[in-house]
Formats: sequence, C-alpha cells, structure tokens
Amino acid sequence: MAPQGQPASVPDDGLTTRERRDRPLLIVHTGDGKGKSTAAFGLALRAWSQGWPVGVFQFVKSAKWRIGEERALRVLADSGAGGTVDWHKMGSGWSWVRDRVDPDGDPAAAAAEGWAQIRRDLAAQTYRLYVLDELTYPLRWGWLDVAEVVETLRTRPGRQHVVVTGRRAPQELLDAADLVTEMTKIRHPMDAGQKGQRGIEW
Amino acid sequence: MAPQGQPASVPDDGLTTRERRDRPLLIVHTGDGKGKSTAAFGLALRAWSQGWPVGVFQFVKSAKWRIGEERALRVLADSGAGGTVDWHKMGSGWSWVRDRVDPDGDPAAAAAEGWAQIRRDLAAQTYRLYVLDELTYPLRWGWLDVAEVVETLRTRPGRQHVVVTGRRAPQELLDAADLVTEMTKIRHPMDAGQKGQRGIEW
Repeated sequence: MAPQGQPASVPDDGLTTRERRDRPLLIVHTGDGKGKSTAAFGLALRAWSQGWPVGVFQFVKSAKWRIGEERALRVLADSGAGGTVDWHKMGSGWSWVRDRVDPDGDPAAAAAEGWAQIRRDLAAQTYRLYVLDELTYPLRWGWLDVAEVVETLRTRPGRQHVVVTGRRAPQELLDAADLVTEMTKIRHPMDAGQKGQRGIEW
Repeated sequence: MAPQGQPASVPDDGLTTRERRDRPLLIVHTGDGKGKSTAAFGLALRAWSQGWPVGVFQFVKSAKWRIGEERALRVLADSGAGGTVDWHKMGSGWSWVRDRVDPDGDPAAAAAEGWAQIRRDLAAQTYRLYVLDELTYPLRWGWLDVAEVVETLRTRPGRQHVVVTGRRAPQELLDAADLVTEMTKIRHPMDAGQKGQRGIEW
C-alpha cells in the first residue's frame, strides 16, 4: 500500500517529480448537483492565499450573481494580504470593453468577446488561476467552438491553472482535463417545495 | 413547466412561504471526489457576506490544515465588512479548552470534546452557519454516536444552517439532511502519478 499522499505509480512521462507536481491543472466541476461553482470559489481562496493573481469570468447571468463570493474576493484582494482578483461578468458587459456590451444584446457575441479576452490573458499569462464559471453553457449552446476552446486550454503556456464549471461539460473538455469532479444531487430542498434562500444560494 | 427558481410543487406542511424559504438547512457534502470541503468554505463566503457569525470545526488533521481557507476567512472576519468567523481544529487542541487537549492524546476524546462544544453552540445559537468539516470520519470510526449527533442536528433551535463534509456519510445523517450532494471523482491527477500541489490542494 502506497504511503498517504503518494501516487500509486510513477508515470514514464519524462518529467521530474517537481515538474509533475507543479504541472498546471485543467479542472472541471460538472454534474447536476450543487457546489460546482462554490468549490471553484473555494479554490480561489487557496490561490489568493498563495499570493496568486486570480481571474474570474462569469459566463451566465446567475440569479444573484454570486454576490457573496464576489464581495468576499474583493475584500480579500483589497486586503493586500494575498493575491489579486479580477472579476468579470458577461451579462453586465465585460469590464474590459470600453463601449459596454449591451446586456440585452447578442449573448453569443458577448460570450465570444469574453472568450477572446481569456485567450489574450492565457497568452499573456495574466493569472495563475482562472475561474471560468459556467463556461459549459456557451459551449453547449454553440456560442463558442468546443474544439477551439479545448485546444486553447490544452496548449496554454506556463503554469496557469484553469477551473471550468457548469452542467453537461462536453466530452472533449472532460478528455482534456486533469481533474474532473461530478457533483451529483442526492437531495435538494426544492424537492420539498423550498425556494432558494439568502446566504445559502447567493 | 415551472418558472425558473420555483419549486415544482408546494408541500402541505403548514408553513408559510417565508417560513419554508428561511428554514434552516442541514447540508451534507459527501462522496469520494474533490470539492466537499472546498464547497463548504465557499458557502462560508456567502454567510460571511450576509454578516452572519460562522463557526468552522475541523475534525480531522488534514495534510495542510486548509491553511488557505483559514487565512482567507480570518482576513474576511478582520475586515469588519461581513460576519465573524471562529475556526476550531481538533488536532491542534480545541481552542476553547483551557488546558489544551494533547494533540497526540486520545483522538476519540478530542472528537467528543469538539462535538460537546458544537452541542453547546447549537443550544446557544452561537452561529448562523456551522461548517463541520470531516465530521463523517469520527462518526464512521465510532468516536461519536451517530443517533445522538443526528438527533441533536435535527432538533437544533432557531435558524442555524449546518454543513457536514466527509466521505461515507452515515445513512441516518443523509436521511436527516435537507440537501445532499455527492462529489464523485471522474479523473484525478494522482491517477497520472501527480502529487498534490500548493494552491490547489491547500
């Protein structure tokens, strides 16, 4: 039995242990259950604590925009005690677009604009952790080209970690990922007629 | 088809919509995959943002003690911009014990001491959110009485939310929970011979 925390086998991949350990990860949180995005923002806490620059890109207008997580990460970034956090939302117009994208305009065009910025940031190695929140939906809806997105993520330079969240992640994305977790709903309060509530859902 | 965010049916439970919406939740994150604790700490971000007092109780000595999450939540609490966070660890001696529990001493006794404090806090309604991190292990190992723990959680007063994390949650706990999510490992870097790394695992 391998010691705790040790891999069961060492692959013949030509990498040193250190190179293998520090290999940048492509992480996917998918499935119909809760916690996909919540766990991604938990990862952002660790990244912030390491002093890393973190970029959050939200691809779908969520009920309450994850205002709790956004507030918390802004306070952390402003504290100066860890890394930086840039938070970008598609639905309200990407923040780097001078003439804001019309929030009631073409969502496919807005998604493409967001993805184009991520490509630029990956090429420039702007962040150490990218939270691509609910990216699976524009992929599923055909707003972004799955093959192009996967190839860009797969060939990103440097040591940039990426976590993608959302239901029904395309198989090509799963195949390219280093770490895939499926969140499965076993029981949910809405099954018992309960609506979402403050502090839990947002 | 029900409107988005609406429950599919309204139960005949004698509660008003508001009472039902604000019902305190017992949440369980279980399964063999990643993200159980990470998502619980993501929930803590939301609770903090609501200005709630949050209590974290860690029942198992984790590799790196979730130092990233702990640092982040301490910075958030100290900011004064949200709620408070108390962070208690079993392995290093529960912080409320004047004569610290010997960390090399009886872990079953330490677990019982931690649970006794949670009972006191639940009775006193000390927190609005309790993160009972890896509580499933002392339950599985027989260090705590499952029936007593479940009954205490089920009958807790007020509007206290509780999230329990850990593998192999006992069925009685799952039966009592309002929301259960199973995190399932689809692919993990250790499968490819990679060890845990800073900023991702801790």
